[in-house]
Amino acid sequence: MTSDTNTPNAPGAGRTIISVDAMGGDLGPAAVVAGISLSARKNPDIGFIVSGDEPTLKSLFAKNPSLADRCEIRHAEEVVTMDDKPSQVMRYGKKTSMWAAVDAVRNGDASVCVSCGNTGALMAVSMIRLRKLPSVNRPAIACLWPSRNKSGFNIMLDVGADIRADQEDLLQYALMGASYARNGMGITRPRVGLLNVGTEEHKGRAELKVAHELISEAAGPADFEFVGFVEGGDIPSDRVDVIVTDGFTGNVALKTGEGTASLISDFLRQAFKATPFARIASLLALTSLKRLKRRIDPRRVNGGVFLGLNGTVIKSHGSADETGIAAAIQLAITLSQSDFNHKLAARVASGAAARQDAQTDQGE
Amino acid sequence: MTSDTNTPNAPGAGRTIISVDAMGGDLGPAAVVAGISLSARKNPDIGFIVSGDEPTLKSLFAKNPSLADRCEIRHAEEVVTMDDKPSQVMRYGKKTSMWAAVDAVRNGDASVCVSCGNTGALMAVSMIRLRKLPSVNRPAIACLWPSRNKSGFNIMLDVGADIRADQEDLLQYALMGASYARNGMGITRPRVGLLNVGTEEHKGRAELKVAHELISEAAGPADFEFVGFVEGGDIPSDRVDVIVTDGFTGNVALKTGEGTASLISDFLRQAFKATPFARIASLLALTSLKRLKRRIDPRRVNGGVFLGLNGTVIKSHGSADETGIAAAIQLAITLSQSDFNHKLAARVASGAAARQDAQTDQGE
Repeated sequence: MTSDTNTPNAPGAGRTIISVDAMGGDLGPAAVVAGISLSARKNPDIGFIVSGDEPTLKSLFAKNPSLADRCEIRHAEEVVTMDDKPSQVMRYGKKTSMWAAVDAVRNGDASVCVSCGNTGALMAVSMIRLRKLPSVNRPAIACLWPSRNKSGFNIMLDVGADIRADQEDLLQYALMGASYARNGMGITRPRVGLLNVGTEEHKGRAELKVAHELISEAAGPADFEFVGFVEGGDIPSDRVDVIVTDGFTGNVALKTGEGTASLISDFLRQAFKATPFARIASLLALTSLKRLKRRIDPRRVNGGVFLGLNGTVIKSHGSADETGIAAAIQLAITLSQSDFNHKLAARVASGAAARQDAQTDQGE
Repeated sequence: MTSDTNTPNAPGAGRTIISVDAMGGDLGPAAVVAGISLSARKNPDIGFIVSGDEPTLKSLFAKNPSLADRCEIRHAEEVVTMDDKPSQVMRYGKKTSMWAAVDAVRNGDASVCVSCGNTGALMAVSMIRLRKLPSVNRPAIACLWPSRNKSGFNIMLDVGADIRADQEDLLQYALMGASYARNGMGITRPRVGLLNVGTEEHKGRAELKVAHELISEAAGPADFEFVGFVEGGDIPSDRVDVIVTDGFTGNVALKTGEGTASLISDFLRQAFKATPFARIASLLALTSLKRLKRRIDPRRVNGGVFLGLNGTVIKSHGSADETGIAAAIQLAITLSQSDFNHKLAARVASGAAARQDAQTDQGE
């Protein structure tokens, strides 16, 4: 591994520090601090920068002095609410805990930022404070999806950073998603698929056909496998590790999947209350049902990762409890310790260079 | 009800006849004939026109003479396969069972056509043989979705007739979807939602904002309630009866929902095999689990309805078994007996006339 003096938080350069926005989640700062506490017990070497209302945070940490020693509190007077418009927060949000949490990454004090706040505002603040990577046009949000794969998850992006994506954006999503799969999930040669309404090459929108070509060309140099077009039914499959799509489609798919899972869970709960036999059955099957619940528990896959910026930001579910927050922090630690953002930046830059070369070649 | 000499299959004009394409399904004509038989037992007054290879069909019907009396076989030499391209079928498909089945509706011999064949080809053949309704630009495919509503289902369209839809198309989908909810599901005043990535009015693509206005204006005259933007998570909810979206997004959402349901079913099956206790539990909860399975069984909601043509065509799942085929035929019977297609045509035409008036008013 090469040493790099510009990256104080690269592995080996010192203790991993995670920046956490303590405010803005539905359950308030107590749930966030409980999540930090859970995570701190599992990861004794990690430090935290915690942004939010200092008196509130101090009283929460007062109950847990050993945790307080590992957390630096950064006071922020204001909180971004779920109703705040991103454009307003960009202009007037300097005093918010969200801003402070992102700035900790910008300043190099922390390697990854975690927030449960308003997604649009978090992306807007991340964009203006961290800026896009030089060769990225549109940053993306990548989520984890329960799947039939051995790892238990697939990656899908973009799930809502932008409602548009052209062929070049989709190519960048493929490069960024493959890099995430490699560094966040340890998949050496990720399989990448492009979401469409059919798997035949002639199907779908024009930009998808061009993106199919671009991603196909990039697969060799960027060391991933391109499986071609995939359909909605393949998202939780073991055919693919990374699903590439525009943020509109990805967001609808993500919420449809979550809605379907929640519908079935409700139906299942009703089914186990329907008869006395079923009630006994639910007790007998308790361990198995808990295991099932764990496999599809959205808290376990908590954390949309913002890709394509000079720094990594993780968006936790607004409704995340301590388990969910701890899961998002765990992802932050994994990505930080794999020096993910520098590797992703290098990958996207070399992809762009290769494209540049190809275009120059064609022009000759 | 007014009498109409041009519609021999309108209610009261005689026996309801359903046209069924016996070929092209994954399980072959035996499954289709079994589905017809199931449906015929439940609906003693219905007749069938069955298109396909005559010798094969005759031998299938030979086992069931009472059914044979109610079915007219129309011989077709050829079969549309799942790999056939729609454009090829349009040009060279005259001798296929699919063509014959659609033509039975075109000629007025049957009121609704049911096929398990290739979706793209079926839409192409339906378009050229039945033609679009005068005021419809893009026909749509509407599907039923298991939901928390009392009826157990919501309607979503378009789920794949076309990958594009502009604001006018989305308005037509709202009118057609509301008409389907009224005539197919008996919902007097359906609630219509427009699928987007957020429920705030400023969110989403430009055409969605315009469509929001158009549908909002149409809601009063067309007697439906417009609930505004809905998200992926609302598709199975009880907030809405009809979800309007473009065919790309709708198709991805449909397949994502099916994929998620199938993933959870597999996990559930594994959970009940995991321990001896769980195995006993699965026996105790058998009735409840069967009920759950029935609630999310895709075979029960089998049948994508093609809307916006001069005639109703129902696309059954390619993999439908006799239960699935019977469900698709049941939907055909309901729609036929409510004189659905004439009501839908009238609704879309009056919607178009209202729009025309409004535009003329603005021009004055």
